[in-house]
Amino acid sequence: MEKKNGGSPLYSDILVEKANILIEALPYIQTLSGKTVVIKYGGNAMVDEELTTKILQDVTLLKYVGVNPILVHGGGPDINAALSKMGVESKFHNGLRITDKATMEVVQMVLAGKLNKNIVSALGSLGGKAIGLCGKDAGLLTVEKKPAKDGVDLGYVGNIVSVNVKLLELLAHDEYIPVIAPVGVDAQGESYNINADTAASEIAAALKAEKLVFLTDVDGIRMQADDPASLISAVSVSEVGRLIASGVITGGMIPKVQGCARAIEKGVSRVHILNGTIPHPIILEIFTDKGIGTMVHADDDVERGTKA
Amino acid sequence: MEKKNGGSPLYSDILVEKANILIEALPYIQTLSGKTVVIKYGGNAMVDEELTTKILQDVTLLKYVGVNPILVHGGGPDINAALSKMGVESKFHNGLRITDKATMEVVQMVLAGKLNKNIVSALGSLGGKAIGLCGKDAGLLTVEKKPAKDGVDLGYVGNIVSVNVKLLELLAHDEYIPVIAPVGVDAQGESYNINADTAASEIAAALKAEKLVFLTDVDGIRMQADDPASLISAVSVSEVGRLIASGVITGGMIPKVQGCARAIEKGVSRVHILNGTIPHPIILEIFTDKGIGTMVHADDDVERGTKA
Amino acid sequence: MEKKNGGSPLYSDILVEKANILIEALPYIQTLSGKTVVIKYGGNAMVDEELTTKILQDVTLLKYVGVNPILVHGGGPDINAALSKMGVESKFHNGLRITDKATMEVVQMVLAGKLNKNIVSALGSLGGKAIGLCGKDAGLLTVEKKPAKDGVDLGYVGNIVSVNVKLLELLAHDEYIPVIAPVGVDAQGESYNINADTAASEIAAALKAEKLVFLTDVDGIRMQADDPASLISAVSVSEVGRLIASGVITGGMIPKVQGCARAIEKGVSRVHILNGTIPHPIILEIFTDKGIGTMVHADDDVERGTKA
Amino acid sequence: MEKKNGGSPLYSDILVEKANILIEALPYIQTLSGKTVVIKYGGNAMVDEELTTKILQDVTLLKYVGVNPILVHGGGPDINAALSKMGVESKFHNGLRITDKATMEVVQMVLAGKLNKNIVSALGSLGGKAIGLCGKDAGLLTVEKKPAKDGVDLGYVGNIVSVNVKLLELLAHDEYIPVIAPVGVDAQGESYNINADTAASEIAAALKAEKLVFLTDVDGIRMQADDPASLISAVSVSEVGRLIASGVITGGMIPKVQGCARAIEKGVSRVHILNGTIPHPIILEIFTDKGIGTMVHADDDVERGTKA
Amino acid sequence: MEKKNGGSPLYSDILVEKANILIEALPYIQTLSGKTVVIKYGGNAMVDEELTTKILQDVTLLKYVGVNPILVHGGGPDINAALSKMGVESKFHNGLRITDKATMEVVQMVLAGKLNKNIVSALGSLGGKAIGLCGKDAGLLTVEKKPAKDGVDLGYVGNIVSVNVKLLELLAHDEYIPVIAPVGVDAQGESYNINADTAASEIAAALKAEKLVFLTDVDGIRMQADDPASLISAVSVSEVGRLIASGVITGGMIPKVQGCARAIEKGVSRVHILNGTIPHPIILEIFTDKGIGTMVHADDDVERGTKA
Amino acid sequence: MEKKNGGSPLYSDILVEKANILIEALPYIQTLSGKTVVIKYGGNAMVDEELTTKILQDVTLLKYVGVNPILVHGGGPDINAALSKMGVESKFHNGLRITDKATMEVVQMVLAGKLNKNIVSALGSLGGKAIGLCGKDAGLLTVEKKPAKDGVDLGYVGNIVSVNVKLLELLAHDEYIPVIAPVGVDAQGESYNINADTAASEIAAALKAEKLVFLTDVDGIRMQADDPASLISAVSVSEVGRLIASGVITGGMIPKVQGCARAIEKGVSRVHILNGTIPHPIILEIFTDKGIGTMVHADDDVERGTKA
Repeated sequence: MEKKNGGSPLYSDILVEKANILIEALPYIQTLSGKTVVIKYGGNAMVDEELTTKILQDVTLLKYVGVNPILVHGGGPDINAALSKMGVESKFHNGLRITDKATMEVVQMVLAGKLNKNIVSALGSLGGKAIGLCGKDAGLLTVEKKPAKDGVDLGYVGNIVSVNVKLLELLAHDEYIPVIAPVGVDAQGESYNINADTAASEIAAALKAEKLVFLTDVDGIRMQADDPASLISAVSVSEVGRLIASGVITGGMIPKVQGCARAIEKGVSRVHILNGTIPHPIILEIFTDKGIGTMVHADDDVERGTKA
Repeated sequence: MEKKNGGSPLYSDILVEKANILIEALPYIQTLSGKTVVIKYGGNAMVDEELTTKILQDVTLLKYVGVNPILVHGGGPDINAALSKMGVESKFHNGLRITDKATMEVVQMVLAGKLNKNIVSALGSLGGKAIGLCGKDAGLLTVEKKPAKDGVDLGYVGNIVSVNVKLLELLAHDEYIPVIAPVGVDAQGESYNINADTAASEIAAALKAEKLVFLTDVDGIRMQADDPASLISAVSVSEVGRLIASGVITGGMIPKVQGCARAIEKGVSRVHILNGTIPHPIILEIFTDKGIGTMVHADDDVERGTKA
Repeated sequence: MEKKNGGSPLYSDILVEKANILIEALPYIQTLSGKTVVIKYGGNAMVDEELTTKILQDVTLLKYVGVNPILVHGGGPDINAALSKMGVESKFHNGLRITDKATMEVVQMVLAGKLNKNIVSALGSLGGKAIGLCGKDAGLLTVEKKPAKDGVDLGYVGNIVSVNVKLLELLAHDEYIPVIAPVGVDAQGESYNINADTAASEIAAALKAEKLVFLTDVDGIRMQADDPASLISAVSVSEVGRLIASGVITGGMIPKVQGCARAIEKGVSRVHILNGTIPHPIILEIFTDKGIGTMVHADDDVERGTKA
Repeated sequence: MEKKNGGSPLYSDILVEKANILIEALPYIQTLSGKTVVIKYGGNAMVDEELTTKILQDVTLLKYVGVNPILVHGGGPDINAALSKMGVESKFHNGLRITDKATMEVVQMVLAGKLNKNIVSALGSLGGKAIGLCGKDAGLLTVEKKPAKDGVDLGYVGNIVSVNVKLLELLAHDEYIPVIAPVGVDAQGESYNINADTAASEIAAALKAEKLVFLTDVDGIRMQADDPASLISAVSVSEVGRLIASGVITGGMIPKVQGCARAIEKGVSRVHILNGTIPHPIILEIFTDKGIGTMVHADDDVERGTKA
Repeated sequence: MEKKNGGSPLYSDILVEKANILIEALPYIQTLSGKTVVIKYGGNAMVDEELTTKILQDVTLLKYVGVNPILVHGGGPDINAALSKMGVESKFHNGLRITDKATMEVVQMVLAGKLNKNIVSALGSLGGKAIGLCGKDAGLLTVEKKPAKDGVDLGYVGNIVSVNVKLLELLAHDEYIPVIAPVGVDAQGESYNINADTAASEIAAALKAEKLVFLTDVDGIRMQADDPASLISAVSVSEVGRLIASGVITGGMIPKVQGCARAIEKGVSRVHILNGTIPHPIILEIFTDKGIGTMVHADDDVERGTKA
Repeated sequence: MEKKNGGSPLYSDILVEKANILIEALPYIQTLSGKTVVIKYGGNAMVDEELTTKILQDVTLLKYVGVNPILVHGGGPDINAALSKMGVESKFHNGLRITDKATMEVVQMVLAGKLNKNIVSALGSLGGKAIGLCGKDAGLLTVEKKPAKDGVDLGYVGNIVSVNVKLLELLAHDEYIPVIAPVGVDAQGESYNINADTAASEIAAALKAEKLVFLTDVDGIRMQADDPASLISAVSVSEVGRLIASGVITGGMIPKVQGCARAIEKGVSRVHILNGTIPHPIILEIFTDKGIGTMVHADDDVERGTKA
């Protein structure tokens, strides 16, 4: 090093390494420049403040390097805690929560009033200009009541009918990061609970997003459930079908992966299942060649060699 | 009538009257076209659903006839109810609530998660495209902690330091009605309670709004407190001083009127104190000559004869 | 009322009624927001200054509440008076005026120089920013000579060949109300008389207007000619055919209604026949449910319940 | 020529000359590119159709080479002819016409309905897209009544109070050539006659025009009235004063030249007095070095060597 | 003349002639307003400084009268001179230069560094704002290596693969004249020589240009090679085929004319072969009816009577 | 790690480190977002292709993360080599090259034709869209001849008179990276050699750039010339004066540092002297706290703790 910089005390191998890593990100940044990336964030990651900060740093970095991130979050344990504190009884049918009006009111307060706005200000502290929305804002997510299942009315649980794409584009093409709580609204102005994964998928499809990223508690799809080394880095939609048929994908992973395939059919380019409990999962997945999770892509998506 | 319309059954004196009233509104609409009107809405009006609907119809009408309304709301009894349900103890000092972190969390949930989003969807049901924001969204209302008073720390109560005018103009100049919950944010991302009247004043001042409208529980300023007929329709800033000095304005009305005068000094053109418990107070005040409340205006505001 | 407003002398049942009527107009305003409405104005209404003022107030109100009105006017008795004063002899063939060059010069002066500009300044006095145009301005209405009929050359009478849509959109999408005199121009720059009804229809069709409104001297179509109570409020294009076939629509109303049907076939959404001799006919028709005249609409125009 | 082009029959000295002349205009076109030129056109030039065509060709050429011409026209003999035909008696006081309401109506018809629209369509035949306006259009020229002079009320004769610059810029910055008839409007919508020279000056001043061109019946200012060879090509504002004081400028030329000087004081860069009875006076004046008339310029207008 | 202008010494027959010629250009200017004209400039014209100036005046005039010219230049004798000075040996195969790396470096320096930038500043001296580009700028002209012919590798000679239309439109729709040196770039950033005629054709086709103009050393296509009077003024694409088949077009003119026909098939409207060694060839061709060269046009290009 | 990611083979400490480094750059990226950075690149760095690539990667990265880089390059040994090859004799006076016309022609070819366009295509290979300009393009750098010094005329050497800011902003605010060769142009279109450091300074000053970066062969300013450890990381303009006065800054570093100070006086915010012979000097300086060179800043530039 002496030779190269005359022994400057400010220059070192560490700096060289830093520069190299920044430069390695350049092609990924170029590929995604100006593209929309919808990120579903929820589950355990939301509980750990440190992990949350690292995820929100990823989101802010995306915005500043010219990508348009849109964050959709879930609820997690806060809803149960609040319901319990407010003395609202939880009723279930076959494991599904029956959402009556009192429950829905608490769900809305926690999702749209507490979690959503706290994510927004956490992004603000990192330099991101975020706007916290729920489906009630300017009809962002209009829904119709989910039909009764097995004769049981689940109450205020909704299926998305339309997404206000115009509002999201106004904000995302400006300097803002939309952060969306999965509360929908029907024609009468009533609030409905929406599954956060579904909300993220529908928003990504409506925006014809380049990417839809699910931050989950698992690493992605494994060829063998108990072998971490068998993680599949990329898989096409039609391979997904074969993997289910052959019993590789099983249990709770089946609906998740089917959701990914449906999002691609609806116009999303690539869907990623990532482990949200490791630091910086988003930039590790999309700013490195191999990434850290499983990417589902269209059959005609010529393998571009990277996940950007 | 026979003579005029050949006896059409569709035509009548009532229709003529309807037409006349719409036409009478024309000059007021012209005067306010493209101007910003900030409306503080709170107190008893929020409790009565029917009154609320009428106020939100006023706001939607303003938007559709070319005025840019911005709504700032308060909390009302919902906060106390929620605190009590959540088992958060209320502590007071000399009548002022001490807002600790647990209290602030409930305040935020109720203001930004329940009331704000419900106003937004109620506007949506009336055809208004509203966006629910609080001060945490893109640093809309940054605050600093209110200093301890008499050695007593009031906790998370803030004074507004800056308003994100750019965000409000993006939304208001587009087709949206911003609806703002008075929750501020400090540099660390912490939430703070803000007085809703103050929030409305600061927002109106930052936007150099044409109008700031306070929907209260009283009719306005009276020359004699117990004589409704003595209501003052319009008063200049310097007259406000004289009315206080001479004891006409007393008690709780003093700080309210002083707040109006300060808003005018900061750049708002006209400030209105209206009774929010009568139907359609906003359009009655600004779309009729005499109006129904008290307007405070600058000394050099040549009496234009109307309140538009 | 006492109870509600503490007896404010400024508040009254009359004000409440005013507010209600304004609010009732809201859904109609919303439906027509940003839409183009072409209004043909002529005949007796033009003679009565008071009626004219009320019609122009309607037009100005439309502009200020976000609708884009375009006014096409006829000539009426002023042309005959001027011809007589100028000593230009009137020649007719089978009741049709033969328009020689001297006649056309007077027609142009009266239409484009007197009536057009007077309507423009009357709108100006009401706060509307109107621009007076005739078909000669930037080729607004290019024509070709109407072929001789029964071997008789009618002279400078034209059929519209093209409409300068770009100019009308520049003005109407800005703050201006175009007011159009039905004088056309051929490739050599010669002036031609155009039937005002036809001009309005062609302009509405070229703009794919939401509405075309004819202000006439009758109430609309009646099921029985002498029974005002038999006025038809709305009728579809195919019903028009049936009503003519069955002898309900007769005489001079047949070409008028056929003209309405043709306008719809050319792309106008709804055509209204109104009595222009009653006050405020336009807003009474389109800002109330039943309206006051007859609306002709497409067969597939699902009855929206209102005439907006 | 043989040598140069191998004897092409299409090539000739005449073509070379044509090319040279086009190229000579280049620096003048560059200097005026994007600038506004207000042209007052009236008097004898308007009577001769051939001269008119040549002047309108000049105006159209200006527009197509990137200059923004605005045409203000006078009335000429047509008004007297029409008044006489319409049987409106002409009254004068000290040589000034007293304009009563009946007279004003005829003046407006002739100016705004006949001459204005005929100029517009003549420009149209030459490929220019012209819009015919008078002062009543969108308050283009608002006036107040000229005060009585020597106790004699001149009637509907107005002094310009304001010019709607916004409208002219909308049209002129688009592809249109505004053509303006000197009829003004007061606050009540009444029409007023305006001196066409004054109208042109006020419009040029309001627009801060690069040039104001008066097409007159004389060549410009001569050092000796009877010696055509003594024409002054360019003169500064302060020299104008000296020429009047020394008796060089006399009679009717004094108010005209003083008007030029005032226009410059109000913000017009250069004012030209041209003989409108010779072919193509405008391009001869501004696309050649010496020009053909007299240019009045500011004292600090460094002689740029050309009149462009 | 005396009669017309009172004997002004500034007015003369010469001025009248000047005005007439400017006015005659008006319809041509109108026809080409806003259109793109790609001009290939090279050969002998480049050697003669006076001729060059006249051609660049033509280009500048086009820009100022609202046409968008784009200039593509060749190399001419400068390349050979520089190669010889730099001691780079010239190798040929069957008359084609073999362009090795050292040769290409010199070619690029001369084309992009000397000729291109000198044309740009010559245009600047005439008032044109020109930008000098080669195919390496923002991938303006990407190429692939021309395949070996008869087993002989020609080295760095390229076929155009794509044209950066976006960059040219950004500059040409602004106030700039793009001047392009025919040096291309491959995916690795290597420079390639491109035939200037081909470069001009491909650029014109990519831009769907109104015109492509070749400045050559001949007058155009002659019916009889040795008879200048037999020059063909205009010919359709299918006539070109017949003229080749019938032996009228022979030798070196065949590929040139076939190139013209191909450009039209690719979307250029009209292609002109002009003699660049006569003064002002461009404006003589497109601003006069008959022009001075040969225009090739599409079969369905209705003879518009002019070459504009 | 096992615990955190379940042993995913794709996840590792190296990835974590990569993510951390990207995230560390976030605040620097935010600070410089949308700002202009002018970079002077020359000397030894230009000779080494690998170093050049690393510098151009830095420039491309800046563009993609939202900064607007503008590159000004020098000549280096290529000019001497070309002069020698072309047989142009080099004459000097007191060590300054006398630039006659033949020399200037070679200088222009090498700078604007070889080096400039090669940098442009090298950026293109890295994904940057660069446009190669010299001062002759649209009058980018107009100059006047440098006055004779000590009676010796240096020939075509120029001082910058004006910078075409509009052109640079058009390109830089679009997706392009301007790359500028230091060749100027005078009013006659003649080429002039300009000192590249001066060109960069003048361009940065004209653009009021946030940063001006000099890539040199030394590390920056040292307190003791022979002690690399004494490098000064940041110094204010007034401290520069003191360091010269006290003999710390000596020799060739004096004019360089004085140039930095002058740039700041002219409106540049911060000027950096970096060692261009180490890899990635630009991002190491501005994306790390301490950086690797010396930053000169205004006296009132409150130490923001970083060099971004």
